[in-house]
Amino acid sequence: MAIKQKRFMLAESDIPTRWYNIQAEMLNKPAPMLNPKTKEPVTVEELSKLISLQAARQELNFTDAWIDIPEPVLDMYRYYRSTPLVRAYGLEKALGTPAHIYFKNESASPIGSHKLNSALPQAYYCKEEGATNITTETGAGQWGCALSYASKVFGLECAVYQVKISYEQKPYRRSVMQAFGAQVTPSPSMSTRAGKDILTKYPNHQGSLGTAISEAVELALTTPGCKYSLGSVMSHVSLHQTIIGLEAELQMQMAGEYPDVVIGCFGGGSNFSGIAFPFMRHNIAGERATRFVAAEPESCPKLTRGKFCYDFGDESGYTPLMPMYSLGHNFKPANIHAGGLRYHGAGVVVSQLLKDKLMEAVDVSQLSSFEAGLLFAKSEGIVPAPESCHAIAAAIEEAKQCIPTGEEKVILFCLSGHGLMDMSAYDQFISGSLGNYTISDADIMKNVANL
Amino acid sequence: MAIKQKRFMLAESDIPTRWYNIQAEMLNKPAPMLNPKTKEPVTVEELSKLISLQAARQELNFTDAWIDIPEPVLDMYRYYRSTPLVRAYGLEKALGTPAHIYFKNESASPIGSHKLNSALPQAYYCKEEGATNITTETGAGQWGCALSYASKVFGLECAVYQVKISYEQKPYRRSVMQAFGAQVTPSPSMSTRAGKDILTKYPNHQGSLGTAISEAVELALTTPGCKYSLGSVMSHVSLHQTIIGLEAELQMQMAGEYPDVVIGCFGGGSNFSGIAFPFMRHNIAGERATRFVAAEPESCPKLTRGKFCYDFGDESGYTPLMPMYSLGHNFKPANIHAGGLRYHGAGVVVSQLLKDKLMEAVDVSQLSSFEAGLLFAKSEGIVPAPESCHAIAAAIEEAKQCIPTGEEKVILFCLSGHGLMDMSAYDQFISGSLGNYTISDADIMKNVANL
Repeated sequence: MAIKQKRFMLAESDIPTRWYNIQAEMLNKPAPMLNPKTKEPVTVEELSKLISLQAARQELNFTDAWIDIPEPVLDMYRYYRSTPLVRAYGLEKALGTPAHIYFKNESASPIGSHKLNSALPQAYYCKEEGATNITTETGAGQWGCALSYASKVFGLECAVYQVKISYEQKPYRRSVMQAFGAQVTPSPSMSTRAGKDILTKYPNHQGSLGTAISEAVELALTTPGCKYSLGSVMSHVSLHQTIIGLEAELQMQMAGEYPDVVIGCFGGGSNFSGIAFPFMRHNIAGERATRFVAAEPESCPKLTRGKFCYDFGDESGYTPLMPMYSLGHNFKPANIHAGGLRYHGAGVVVSQLLKDKLMEAVDVSQLSSFEAGLLFAKSEGIVPAPESCHAIAAAIEEAKQCIPTGEEKVILFCLSGHGLMDMSAYDQFISGSLGNYTISDADIMKNVANL
Repeated sequence: MAIKQKRFMLAESDIPTRWYNIQAEMLNKPAPMLNPKTKEPVTVEELSKLISLQAARQELNFTDAWIDIPEPVLDMYRYYRSTPLVRAYGLEKALGTPAHIYFKNESASPIGSHKLNSALPQAYYCKEEGATNITTETGAGQWGCALSYASKVFGLECAVYQVKISYEQKPYRRSVMQAFGAQVTPSPSMSTRAGKDILTKYPNHQGSLGTAISEAVELALTTPGCKYSLGSVMSHVSLHQTIIGLEAELQMQMAGEYPDVVIGCFGGGSNFSGIAFPFMRHNIAGERATRFVAAEPESCPKLTRGKFCYDFGDESGYTPLMPMYSLGHNFKPANIHAGGLRYHGAGVVVSQLLKDKLMEAVDVSQLSSFEAGLLFAKSEGIVPAPESCHAIAAAIEEAKQCIPTGEEKVILFCLSGHGLMDMSAYDQFISGSLGNYTISDADIMKNVANL
């Protein structure tokens, strides 16, 4: 029996030392983010009141395509990077597809997801600039775990607002954050004005990334020495996550292939951007015609059914106005287990790229996502995060199309994290007690009517 | 800031293709296992009624120091091996020690522990020899998860008896086994004669590896086409796990160091043997004087306080009589969270090695183990399994001894698995509600009196 290479790892010396900033090479730049009071474009100075100055500069950097990764961050990357690129022979066999399926295994990070890639630089910049505290929101808890650990690494105190439904669905993620020394509060909470306002209006509000962002932003703006940090949506987060795709490109070279289609699940855009942008630069340069597919939940369909408009990034309207596909900042996502995808909007860069047809989007039902995830677990031995299940479902759909045609399509997707702390969701799926959620066009229209 | 290499990975072509069989090179061979009825040495034929013929041959192989890893097993190893060897700079800094601490990160396997290394060959051999079903016991569930997945890989049906206390403490591990398609039963159960007998005598029995082994063995012996598989204790399991230490030796060469002390936690011996034996062969050959330390729970101290004698491997006396350090096969371990260490005996090889002073043993209290694990989590970003916390505690103890002396001792330990499914135990530790368990000399004496 011939041994086929399944796992591709980079030598430490080959790990990229720069991030790729797609903003510098986009032909159509995104419209500017606006200060909601003045309606003027947001400046680095304004942004840096909330986030670190370096992150603010990166957010508005439309000129430099490559940004050096700071040495202390690289030093930490080298603890767990490269993550493996894996040829999913087991999944191919289970599907009976001639397609070549690869996944970039970000679940192999110590935290269990890709989120550490941006948590480390964000915490580092805050510390370098003199902050003592950092605060953020988290959905499923992947980002909260990453920032809790990154804060510990660089010596910051960390406070996390976790979406209430996830706090209750995934208690172990809260435990991990606490093990790393973070303070964790379910959101909406009574600890902020934003939280109080939301709870007054909707006493049973289950929380969303939008509510948790409002609370974290308020804490940062009202606490001296405290900076806010975001795990997705913003361009500097996508920038940091490009380490995923930059590695994957080198690893695909090792495998002797180039992807025909690149797939990521989609909440705010961080892992999708991370895997996609480094490959997309070759499309922008006219060298390749790769397809890029963002897989979002059927119940939170901002890319497939949202409105392209200016909207806030949070429920209470603390953030700048951003030009993006949105379901409305007051949208209350259904209680799906993919907590990291329960967000009303998409980052400005991804929104522009989708508008310009440089990428596509598909929606996946909760049941389809778990069906795909379970097949992946059985064939590859890794239980995927409910978020990642959406990317797997989209990859399987692409691979199935090759069965009648015989096409050896090269499919690459990002396994953004493992689902070992989401087993109650799998239990429900296996026992048949999990359902689908949809949203009517009328409800979407109502939500975005005033945007 | 200079970048120090932290993680050492082997190229796929450097992954060892043979296991190391220490039995062939031990100067004092272990006394034979005995058939409890005839009191004659157990034969390959007898053993192969229970386990696969290949595993039985390996169990009693005292001549071949190197055993080829079958190609289909190597093929699967290459999905996740090498695991990383990591220099724990973060832990060193937190301790303020001049020691060089390395850990072999077996938590990076898809299953989250080292157990897959033996599950794959055992399932493969059973399938090759015509079995359709496989059954086993599991404590914390690491072994059960590994065998459930390995069974799926090679096309076997899998039934797992999980120690009842762990089944309740760690419900997510049961979910993972079920996600892989295994049937999971808490032990002692009413589904076997052994289980019924135990429950009749002790209606509130919380289970132990000894009870679960009895049930699985009975199922295998009474079911056509069904083989039994064990996750630790036996020599062929230790053999398979030597892939850990063989890789670590090559990776330590990459780091330019050789360990002064090698440490593993100790339940039945599988991860300790795996990390230790490949280094120990240089001690046997007189080339090195490395120390080997097995870290066991204070509440289950067979190595530090047990009796060297012939005893059964299971509660009901189905297994051969083995010459080993034991607390008595009726010993009921305290309900510590390190479920994988709740076993009354030690493998025959480790027992002989300890008797011959080729290795040492230390005991660690439950609270000390979690204190060590939490410090490791904060400094290295990986939440360790409660079992692994024992190895970490022993490594920290070694590293602390270097603080007054300034010795740059090279310490290597095996991180046998992650603790992401043991977060309730960490919650209890952090909240102060976790306790220690001890056992009196009188109780030990009583248990081993008739052996």
